[in-house]
Amino acid sequence: MAKEIERKFLVSGEHWRHFADAGVAIKQGYLVAMDDRSLRVRTYDDGHACLTLKIGKTALSRDEYEFDIDAETATDMLHHAVGTVLEKVRYEVEHEGFTWEVDEYGGRYSGLVVAEVELDSEADLPKIPDWVGHEVTGDDRYSNQAMALSAATTGPLDEPHSQSG
Amino acid sequence: MAKEIERKFLVSGEHWRHFADAGVAIKQGYLVAMDDRSLRVRTYDDGHACLTLKIGKTALSRDEYEFDIDAETATDMLHHAVGTVLEKVRYEVEHEGFTWEVDEYGGRYSGLVVAEVELDSEADLPKIPDWVGHEVTGDDRYSNQAMALSAATTGPLDEPHSQSG
Repeated sequence: MAKEIERKFLVSGEHWRHFADAGVAIKQGYLVAMDDRSLRVRTYDDGHACLTLKIGKTALSRDEYEFDIDAETATDMLHHAVGTVLEKVRYEVEHEGFTWEVDEYGGRYSGLVVAEVELDSEADLPKIPDWVGHEVTGDDRYSNQAMALSAATTGPLDEPHSQSG
Repeated sequence: MAKEIERKFLVSGEHWRHFADAGVAIKQGYLVAMDDRSLRVRTYDDGHACLTLKIGKTALSRDEYEFDIDAETATDMLHHAVGTVLEKVRYEVEHEGFTWEVDEYGGRYSGLVVAEVELDSEADLPKIPDWVGHEVTGDDRYSNQAMALSAATTGPLDEPHSQSG
């Protein structure tokens, strides 16, 4: 089973928009959010929807099962989400042979823009675009699960260095 | 969404077998087992498999989502079950206009045979077959989720009246 190797960064400025595709709007909620397993439901504004079960504590040791489900059922399931239903538009940006996924959050996290790049191996060294800022790989505050479950804030996440631990 | 109304009984003797169909062998495990939601994976020996999410604390207020999945994926998912993977053969027995499901457990619960009848309304009064014994409707010890999670015992469940609470 494929394992995920990803690096995650905050995005600075608006320059990335020149290179982005049209984007797809996503709503996602967690039906289950535990330390070692989660069940996520997602709807996409292109009409498809999926249910994703992740089991395992770290991305490198995680098993992931994904099932397409019908959008109406998925929308109904979102009402049972624990915490916040996240809203974001996901764009793809090609840069020097790598595909970056740029997530622009709406709703409670409006203002937050995060870029992820998926690597074939940990030795991969993608060229970092100039619109990419601070790296937040492994920072749990930027995991979607943590964002969905965290207590409401008045704006986007605190600055990366304003919290310890 | 349809809500379940079921009555559950212990089965005494072997007489029911004369009226039963060929039965289907089921393995089922819980990937998530929480107070108000559960995720169950089941394989059937006829080759099909399903994933069932139940949300809500009581059968009468529960939403249930069921998805057919491929059997190979389901078998892989059973390795992630919490607690025991339950094994049972499910038979159907017609009796006086009602269909009884008789579950004969194997593995750790070998010796336990439970019959369930589904009702259209709580006012339904099915005629109880003579092979049906003590009623255990609402007795959590006979819920499959509780059986999967309970600590190992040396045999089938204790006698219905040997525990209080």
